[in-house]
Amino acid sequence: MTENKVTATQQAQQWLDSFEETLNSDNPAQAADLFEDGGFWRDLVTMTWNIKTMEGRGAIRDMLSATAKRTHPANWQVSEEATEQDGVIDAWVTFETVDAIGKGHLRLRNGHAWTLLTTMQELKGFPEKRKFNRAKGAEHGASKSRKSWLETLQDEQQELGYSRQPYCVIIGGGQGGIALAARLKQLDVPTIVVERSAKAGDSWRNRYKSLCLHDPIWYDHLPYLPFPDHWPVFAPKDKIGDWLEMYTKIMELNYWSSTECTAARYDEASKEWVVDVVRDGEKVTLRPQQLVLATGMSGIPNVPDIPGMDTFEGEQHHSSRHPGGEAFKGKKCVILGANNSAHDICAALWENSADVTMIQRSSTHIIKSDTLMDDVLGGLYSEQAIADGMTTEKADLTFASVPFRIMPDFHIPVYKQVAEKDADFYGRLKKAGFMLDFGDDGSGLFMKYLRRGSGYYIDVGASELVADGEIKLKSGVGIEHINPRSVTLTDGTELPADLIVYATGYGSMNGWAARIISEEVADKVGKCWGMGSDTTKDPGPWEGELRNMWKPTQQEALWFHGGNLHQSRHYSLYLALQLKARKEGIDTPVYGQESVHHLS
Amino acid sequence: MTENKVTATQQAQQWLDSFEETLNSDNPAQAADLFEDGGFWRDLVTMTWNIKTMEGRGAIRDMLSATAKRTHPANWQVSEEATEQDGVIDAWVTFETVDAIGKGHLRLRNGHAWTLLTTMQELKGFPEKRKFNRAKGAEHGASKSRKSWLETLQDEQQELGYSRQPYCVIIGGGQGGIALAARLKQLDVPTIVVERSAKAGDSWRNRYKSLCLHDPIWYDHLPYLPFPDHWPVFAPKDKIGDWLEMYTKIMELNYWSSTECTAARYDEASKEWVVDVVRDGEKVTLRPQQLVLATGMSGIPNVPDIPGMDTFEGEQHHSSRHPGGEAFKGKKCVILGANNSAHDICAALWENSADVTMIQRSSTHIIKSDTLMDDVLGGLYSEQAIADGMTTEKADLTFASVPFRIMPDFHIPVYKQVAEKDADFYGRLKKAGFMLDFGDDGSGLFMKYLRRGSGYYIDVGASELVADGEIKLKSGVGIEHINPRSVTLTDGTELPADLIVYATGYGSMNGWAARIISEEVADKVGKCWGMGSDTTKDPGPWEGELRNMWKPTQQEALWFHGGNLHQSRHYSLYLALQLKARKEGIDTPVYGQESVHHLS
Repeated sequence: MTENKVTATQQAQQWLDSFEETLNSDNPAQAADLFEDGGFWRDLVTMTWNIKTMEGRGAIRDMLSATAKRTHPANWQVSEEATEQDGVIDAWVTFETVDAIGKGHLRLRNGHAWTLLTTMQELKGFPEKRKFNRAKGAEHGASKSRKSWLETLQDEQQELGYSRQPYCVIIGGGQGGIALAARLKQLDVPTIVVERSAKAGDSWRNRYKSLCLHDPIWYDHLPYLPFPDHWPVFAPKDKIGDWLEMYTKIMELNYWSSTECTAARYDEASKEWVVDVVRDGEKVTLRPQQLVLATGMSGIPNVPDIPGMDTFEGEQHHSSRHPGGEAFKGKKCVILGANNSAHDICAALWENSADVTMIQRSSTHIIKSDTLMDDVLGGLYSEQAIADGMTTEKADLTFASVPFRIMPDFHIPVYKQVAEKDADFYGRLKKAGFMLDFGDDGSGLFMKYLRRGSGYYIDVGASELVADGEIKLKSGVGIEHINPRSVTLTDGTELPADLIVYATGYGSMNGWAARIISEEVADKVGKCWGMGSDTTKDPGPWEGELRNMWKPTQQEALWFHGGNLHQSRHYSLYLALQLKARKEGIDTPVYGQESVHHLS
Repeated sequence: MTENKVTATQQAQQWLDSFEETLNSDNPAQAADLFEDGGFWRDLVTMTWNIKTMEGRGAIRDMLSATAKRTHPANWQVSEEATEQDGVIDAWVTFETVDAIGKGHLRLRNGHAWTLLTTMQELKGFPEKRKFNRAKGAEHGASKSRKSWLETLQDEQQELGYSRQPYCVIIGGGQGGIALAARLKQLDVPTIVVERSAKAGDSWRNRYKSLCLHDPIWYDHLPYLPFPDHWPVFAPKDKIGDWLEMYTKIMELNYWSSTECTAARYDEASKEWVVDVVRDGEKVTLRPQQLVLATGMSGIPNVPDIPGMDTFEGEQHHSSRHPGGEAFKGKKCVILGANNSAHDICAALWENSADVTMIQRSSTHIIKSDTLMDDVLGGLYSEQAIADGMTTEKADLTFASVPFRIMPDFHIPVYKQVAEKDADFYGRLKKAGFMLDFGDDGSGLFMKYLRRGSGYYIDVGASELVADGEIKLKSGVGIEHINPRSVTLTDGTELPADLIVYATGYGSMNGWAARIISEEVADKVGKCWGMGSDTTKDPGPWEGELRNMWKPTQQEALWFHGGNLHQSRHYSLYLALQLKARKEGIDTPVYGQESVHHLS
């Protein structure tokens, strides 16, 4: 029976063959008809030179009308055995366009494409120097003008930014800027990373002592140089700091530490940025053609403006400046906020025998770290996944293959299971007065992260302290007024306080554009992050992709890069390829750029 | 037809089943009869707690009589499809002993074992903390006595060697010491590496400017953290230096740089070494239970004693101290020696427009780097090998599976091909007067390396300069006398000289034991390296393994570690497991330790 059945692979290849035939016809837009009526095509810079999800046949048809004759997508092949489950065929795909070599993923349902992902992997003519294509290192033969590797590197370090201008400047040398710079290095795009701290990794080192990554190691690899097999599941902050420092050196990045960007403006005439930086106290003006803000997806700290703040006689700071719990033994500490940082800081203060109160203003999504690992991430990012043949690249592409519109449908049932599995845990938290949620639609952690980048805590222990009352909780209130040695809550309670920590989150990344470039440019590009889901803190209209992230913005030659380690790793590829294409003078017409609806 | 045939895998498994049955019988030594009469069993510390090749049934029988009842080798399984070629079945094998889990390799011919390799991979009860077994990093939950990763690391760095003694001290922090220390770290064996240079990697950085590894990258990986895919084929010395520096940090080694070992003695009463070191100018006495000399396989530089040396008015130094060619533009340079360093130094001097003469005292084996890569190493260590499914571990085990006695038989035909392929190249060298050889028996590079660690050059360009006369050559002569501004050769020629470089090789590693411990101990352990092949510079009697390397020596608790990057990587595993077993009090009776025949 099996022999007569058309295999999943054959069905996927047949679909691709029809697809290719139509794409090559006089009317390539008709290829939209091979999708379900409500099907999706998510494109990462292969068809659109944009990061864009086309939703429905109409949108796909429009995109193809505008792009297919130029991009000429071809050679669509199933690249490994396709699988079928619940009537959906999953297939990995390779293809190419006039510009590039791509990988993709197809979900086929009843003979039509439900979802198609297309991603650029390599620009034709500009392969990375890896594997078979790696440099030789030693130039064999003898030459009287030979320069050693070290001399060449030292020359570049001396010249770049002074006698020779970089093509690209990245502001911010955390994991985002570093991952992108590594990709650009491999693509021969001269780049300088500007970082305020004295050493790469300091943005991690300088945070509170007990901080560890909340995402597991399989999720956190940087490009090119994965963490070794003995790396701990949740890497401690100083260990990550050391890794980043090592990484910048091994990847030979032009990493300007102890350097602050004071101003940047785009010179429309010369099509250059004029970027003023102060490097080790000396003013240097850089003139790159592209400017990337990689200043942290979270942007500038939100410090609330509360009456009486200026009268407070204790210590008060934003969570991003919190030094850890050591100095506060026996002190009365008030933490405003109830998300990740608030929980971590409360737990560390408690561990140092402080008296800790958390002020929860609105509900929080909590998920136990072990549950997150086992029930949510496990299939893609875990030791078991690797043992089963999953790779980091495939996991990233799988994650990317689900259009944001339908991603909640994938997550809601998972988080229902989570709620049941950990019902006792959630019950105890509620009993302690903690306000819980699973997102506006029950879709849990990732959707909250993608929509608003806040509103959750991955529990690594603090929740039990909240449930037990070891961390005191005031929920459903805010701080009304700050007094010299106390805070007055909106319900009238007065809490004595030696320390106030504002774990109140961050503004949009375009706040950095305002600070470094101008308010005008910040408003021109508008809010970063969020996708217009019309849920809390992510106002509509629907855009279907993260606003302004890793793709062209309304300001020519200005880019935003950021996110967690997974995103920094994965999306740095597409941003790097966009920059490389521009450097090489490849035509990059951007399809379907969104207009701006929100200023911040 | 195929279906009726017993597959190679089945034949290998049948042999293993018989083998296991006999090993479990009252007379396990009878298992020797399952080998060819002249068959080989090479054991890396599983049966013998030694590195030892048993040659012939008699030797195998003796070994089994002495060891099998204690080690109880069992559970022999073919671990992947076996292959058959030219009547020889090749099979990968897993097994275990009372102490350990092992991997092996079997060559079966006419139903009998031709060669068997057994290697220890993991001590039972002491798995490395990797993959599924890795540390969690963050301790979930809350605890008032929690120490961060950084605090724990800092405590260890402060205590070890002062208030707490390491179990092991490694003298020498080049690639050998570093690779071993990384293994010991992963096995929880407290270790300090003592290194004279200011930074890890300086032993590479301080060498002549143009130096690159002569072995390709696939051969050179360190344990745990392979070089990334874009690393150049032949890594430049400073890049390797940076990698080693990064590696010591990322692997969290207790690496004492700027530290010199001034003396060491074994205290028989306390079974401890007393190791005096000067660390950053301060004297510290370490008391480890094990001492490893990893001071470079090459030992102490051989500087010849030539009449008139003291009268020379120019500059003279051993090749290990040569600073590179820059300072010698237009100078008359005489290089004594014709091996790797001599060629590299001559080429770099020529590139700096010096007048260069090479003095070749005896014949040299030359192989072009590309030929070495394509015709010799390619099957195991190349990008193609990786694309074909080869891994570093499997390549190392494959290399280890060939007993030294028959290794020349594998290599002689390869080097015959090499001689034919590059006949024109060799012809031109001969015509220029260069004395060539392929080893005493035509077995080429690796056998020369293993027998004597010298006598060859992997050509990356200098040979063409010799053939062209750009590097002048005097061959078949030595230096008779050194004059204030010249050298007089043994044929009476006088060569003007501003610089003399003694590229005259190194002594045996036990020279370091003499210098650090005592002449008495150096003589007690005897010569290191070489296998007793009775060829040039490797006097008999035959031992069949490298003398004193990575295995117990005649001096209790003294070990030698070294070799190229491949050997440092691979054999550090077996040395680390031997040390770990001793630390854990596991019984480690050493079978078949060789007696000492040569003092140096």
